[in-house]
Amino acid sequence: MTLTSADPVTDGPGAVALLDRTRTAVDPQIRSTVETLPGSIRRVAMYHFGWEEADGTPASGQAGKAIRPALVLAAARALGAEEARAVKAAAAVELAHNFTLLHDDIVDEDPTRRHRPTAWTVFGIPDALMAGDAMNALALRLLAEDPHPASAAATARLAACVIELCAGQQADCAFESRGPREVSLDECLAMATAKTGALLGCSCALGALYAGAGEEEVAALDSFGREAGLAFQLIDDLIGIWGDPERTGKPAGADLAARKKSLPVVAALTSGTAAGEELAALYSRTELDARAVRAAADAVERAGGRDWAQAQAADRMGRAVEHLARAVPDLSAAGDLLALAEFVTRRTR
Amino acid sequence: MTLTSADPVTDGPGAVALLDRTRTAVDPQIRSTVETLPGSIRRVAMYHFGWEEADGTPASGQAGKAIRPALVLAAARALGAEEARAVKAAAAVELAHNFTLLHDDIVDEDPTRRHRPTAWTVFGIPDALMAGDAMNALALRLLAEDPHPASAAATARLAACVIELCAGQQADCAFESRGPREVSLDECLAMATAKTGALLGCSCALGALYAGAGEEEVAALDSFGREAGLAFQLIDDLIGIWGDPERTGKPAGADLAARKKSLPVVAALTSGTAAGEELAALYSRTELDARAVRAAADAVERAGGRDWAQAQAADRMGRAVEHLARAVPDLSAAGDLLALAEFVTRRTR
Repeated sequence: MTLTSADPVTDGPGAVALLDRTRTAVDPQIRSTVETLPGSIRRVAMYHFGWEEADGTPASGQAGKAIRPALVLAAARALGAEEARAVKAAAAVELAHNFTLLHDDIVDEDPTRRHRPTAWTVFGIPDALMAGDAMNALALRLLAEDPHPASAAATARLAACVIELCAGQQADCAFESRGPREVSLDECLAMATAKTGALLGCSCALGALYAGAGEEEVAALDSFGREAGLAFQLIDDLIGIWGDPERTGKPAGADLAARKKSLPVVAALTSGTAAGEELAALYSRTELDARAVRAAADAVERAGGRDWAQAQAADRMGRAVEHLARAVPDLSAAGDLLALAEFVTRRTR
Repeated sequence: MTLTSADPVTDGPGAVALLDRTRTAVDPQIRSTVETLPGSIRRVAMYHFGWEEADGTPASGQAGKAIRPALVLAAARALGAEEARAVKAAAAVELAHNFTLLHDDIVDEDPTRRHRPTAWTVFGIPDALMAGDAMNALALRLLAEDPHPASAAATARLAACVIELCAGQQADCAFESRGPREVSLDECLAMATAKTGALLGCSCALGALYAGAGEEEVAALDSFGREAGLAFQLIDDLIGIWGDPERTGKPAGADLAARKKSLPVVAALTSGTAAGEELAALYSRTELDARAVRAAADAVERAGGRDWAQAQAADRMGRAVEHLARAVPDLSAAGDLLALAEFVTRRTR
């Protein structure tokens, strides 16, 4: 099936339907591409995507929300392309995203992903690492082999984005080992832009490239995705502190208990306020109990970190829409892109 | 400087000069490409290539033998191309090779590379892993951004090769945990083809593509490189058992002490001979002392593993030359390719 721009979605449930339809359009391409991998690599990839159990028996798992492929297709449609022509580009960004997940889970030592044990815990680090490497090359191969005229520009752009994602993940890891006063807000924003904004921007840019858009429109779509991505990260960080455990599946204050240098936390730490000093003292401890976590959340709030993050998220969404309007002056053609941006920034509030 | 086909090298010292000239032609491209990486990733890459110390001060290290770039340039020349046009392709294969080294060193827990501590021991696993990921994308980006008409085909081909390299490394790791009778010779040959032959073949194929060669010539050059690569691996495995410690820098029998399932060893283990049984019994031990290592080497020899590997290496070189003759009927134009193949198969005997 294909999606048409005649049916833009403008609210949450609409975005959910859009994501469902994206999976229907793109999953077969992702799966047939993954199935070209050599057997030993393929089984790790099939497990990671939730299509197989560890022993190779079929599974009907959830392969992720498909936000990035949905952005590719929505951007292509907004600029007048037939979305069927951009399906390979949509599959490529999802493959690139999943390569980073495979490697991030190793580096972060995360035990679960999408409610299942992570690939490295099931197959061991060498197999998960090699599967990620192969998936990185597979994403770029899919684009390079696509006979579409935008193929070369899209391949180069996705490769540049992957490099940025790696720098973002590297910075995120490096922050962990630095003291509570040793990360500036600018560094933290740059990290979030590289780690989260870059691939959302690249997804929109690839959709534009596949619609035959010019450089300025492509750049505007990239900026739209980046700003929306940063808004998403800010909201995600707020959820990591004040999210409802019943809706997020994580205990309240999980990011604080892990002493994570998320955006609201760094805003508080660098606020120059007494509450910021309290937070720094709490973050200097080796462990935070439930009471200390509550005190830390309170300190972030009093230091202005919560308000700052909420205002920043709104500001970033405003900038995102401005960028979008440059490329798509009649925003009614961009309803799906706006719905997706709205969706990712309020999904679990 | 550029290399000309007017000066083919036909012996060892000639190949050495050819490699020196390749480095002069290609290193500036590799370095300027690495210098486009974000700072945190760049410092790991600059260290890995031997251009910087861990603290960022300049170093004048050796960045590897440049066999793969030399094959790209020699293949391009053999098929009538100006080698200057293929320099980016030559740099790309060397970047891809070095991405695999960064990750292989993590997976194999190797402490040294080119007489220096490996990147993961200096910068930690997360940084080395991310630097490898970025270098994988960088190699493909360099090809995708090259305005040469062969760019797209070359990008797709290198990406496919990277996937094969990953499968080869995965198989190599998997062999380690299997019993001495549980790896067949065919599996072992397939692993060596994927891990060593694929990139040598791809290097030659990229040179052919950049010379505007047709599909059959490109395939013939790929087969030439693959067969030469397998010959190289067979000789390397013989050196790992009977190499002169003074020339190899490793103790005699190093591969046997590590109970490595190299090609001559697997040939012996699967020979159905009494000596093969002796070797299997030795490989079932948890540790081999110097006396057991000598007994194992003797068993490989009596089981026919040494003769088989030597005959296979000669046979593979013969096949390599046959493939080459299909693409370059007048072999005098392919002198440099032959010299490089000869060089890699006898470099430390």
